[in-house]
Amino acid sequence: VELRIAFIGFGKVAQAFARMIESRRDYLLREFDLSWRTMAIATANHGSIFTREGIDLTEAVAAMESGANLHKLGGAFAARDPYEVLERCPADILFETTTLNPTDGEPAATFIRQALERGINVVTANKGPVAFAYRELKTISVRNKASFRFEGAVMDGAPVFNLAEYCLPAATVKGFAGVLNSTTNVILEGIEEGRSFEESLSEAQRIGVAEANADYDIDGWDACVKAVVIAKVLMEADIDPRQVARKGIRGVRGEDMRSARNEGMTIRLVARGWRDGLRTCLSVSPERVPLDSLMGSTRGTSNALILETDLMGEIAIVEKSPGVEQTAYALLSDMLRIRSSMSGRHSIG
Amino acid sequence: VELRIAFIGFGKVAQAFARMIESRRDYLLREFDLSWRTMAIATANHGSIFTREGIDLTEAVAAMESGANLHKLGGAFAARDPYEVLERCPADILFETTTLNPTDGEPAATFIRQALERGINVVTANKGPVAFAYRELKTISVRNKASFRFEGAVMDGAPVFNLAEYCLPAATVKGFAGVLNSTTNVILEGIEEGRSFEESLSEAQRIGVAEANADYDIDGWDACVKAVVIAKVLMEADIDPRQVARKGIRGVRGEDMRSARNEGMTIRLVARGWRDGLRTCLSVSPERVPLDSLMGSTRGTSNALILETDLMGEIAIVEKSPGVEQTAYALLSDMLRIRSSMSGRHSIG
Repeated sequence: VELRIAFIGFGKVAQAFARMIESRRDYLLREFDLSWRTMAIATANHGSIFTREGIDLTEAVAAMESGANLHKLGGAFAARDPYEVLERCPADILFETTTLNPTDGEPAATFIRQALERGINVVTANKGPVAFAYRELKTISVRNKASFRFEGAVMDGAPVFNLAEYCLPAATVKGFAGVLNSTTNVILEGIEEGRSFEESLSEAQRIGVAEANADYDIDGWDACVKAVVIAKVLMEADIDPRQVARKGIRGVRGEDMRSARNEGMTIRLVARGWRDGLRTCLSVSPERVPLDSLMGSTRGTSNALILETDLMGEIAIVEKSPGVEQTAYALLSDMLRIRSSMSGRHSIG
Repeated sequence: VELRIAFIGFGKVAQAFARMIESRRDYLLREFDLSWRTMAIATANHGSIFTREGIDLTEAVAAMESGANLHKLGGAFAARDPYEVLERCPADILFETTTLNPTDGEPAATFIRQALERGINVVTANKGPVAFAYRELKTISVRNKASFRFEGAVMDGAPVFNLAEYCLPAATVKGFAGVLNSTTNVILEGIEEGRSFEESLSEAQRIGVAEANADYDIDGWDACVKAVVIAKVLMEADIDPRQVARKGIRGVRGEDMRSARNEGMTIRLVARGWRDGLRTCLSVSPERVPLDSLMGSTRGTSNALILETDLMGEIAIVEKSPGVEQTAYALLSDMLRIRSSMSGRHSIG
């Protein structure tokens, strides 16, 4: 089966995904009866294009890397913006990986909404649209028989939502606790090693873990939005990121780390979810955790999520030192899931 | 859909499973269109029975708990042994949870082979038949269009094989490392706390973690057989448990633990698998691991398995303090997977 695919957002994650699938064309065709034709790519700074015949994805990646405008690719028509791409381009799957506005999930949520309304399956690595519009987008996807998948929204390609959906049948998630933000983890490790908060932040920025403006991570927003995604999808919670009790790591000093260490503890930015009657409560804050606990063992960019369930007790999933490849894998895993939900001889579930 | 189910082996795990499903009849019917009728139960010491009308599973559990023979249950015919049950009882799923002979996987492998030959789906919590006869049993299951599922063989109900099959599509497992045996973990913890090896073993037996004869755990056989199961199923390895480089924890002394501790380390019985060219190599031995590492964080009966993959890097699954309920959940999870592979409106994948 040849799927027509389109991209809105074509940054590092989408490019890594493009390389991942293009270098495995034979394998994916043979094992999953999956092939694809790239119909459109919309970017913020390199133009937006659509075609009738298909774009060479490898050429598109090369153009992005060299800083060229995509309009120069052969056989491509220029589009004004992503909205025109969505209107004019026929696609079976939209890969949405735009830069996120973390306070409202836009414009990603609008792109996704419009695609789902047109019956296009959507795969996103963006947590914002899920945190702010999960129920609405899910309803539209069901009504239009289009998939809405977002494994990459939390913990990159580590299975979180697929784990719950396909591996924990009949089990109910009652609560969770997790170390979900890499930047704060790297900063806290720096403070633990004797550097100041500012030095640790600079180091995290230098190695590419933290953005130039890292307030969103440091103040706990990133972990908070991820906690909301987990709560909405796995616990059917109705909660807004702004309602979450949230405390970032700005107040954490070297002496806090040292005094924790003296007691066999360390400090992590922990996101928690639990039920209080019918309500789901969330919190994000720096917590003392034992050095020899699962959360204490998260080093560097590693993440961990502990799910408390009724039938299966506590299980955890840990992702070690993820990079852009792991987020790209989330897109591939969702693409294969969509492929397997279509008819055909091959299936992953 | 009403599935006809049968049990060979009806000990603690099967009884916990029976209670789990019987107490959720309405829920499982509503959410998964799943109902069942128990056609036969074969035990080693409480008789073997089969029926035409169905056995009351709750009554059967009560009979086992009171030490009664199952022959006394209403409407049940006595069978000589499990083999007669397999011959005379029509069933859609066989739940195989007999006591394991760890050196050859028998008689479990024979029960499973005969059931699959007759086209009966099999769910087992036994690692032995998988370790010794995986390829043969898988071949028979494919030929007879019957499922062969064994999520409970490693790490109880924590998704290991389902995780790889449904959540890591197109990713290849290149190696693994895990703390897979609870008894040795509890003993090592006891030694760490200052008790002798013998005292720690007695304590593990007293709290019901270790068997009266715990040699199988202590000498690393249990971890070894589990490692073989992982290697055969996830790495397509062709290896026999007797070929594994295996060292148990008998030699571990308090001073070893203390000297490790002084360096921020602890000792765990670690099972490892890796590729060496086309060969898959396995080892089981006590290893020093950092206290603040994932494996160092496994306390009490907790287990952890780290999978090294090509596309998804390293991810780990951790099961905290599992008990018999978690193994029972493995049976339920496999049962729901079989249900969803049949036609019908409900599906978990």
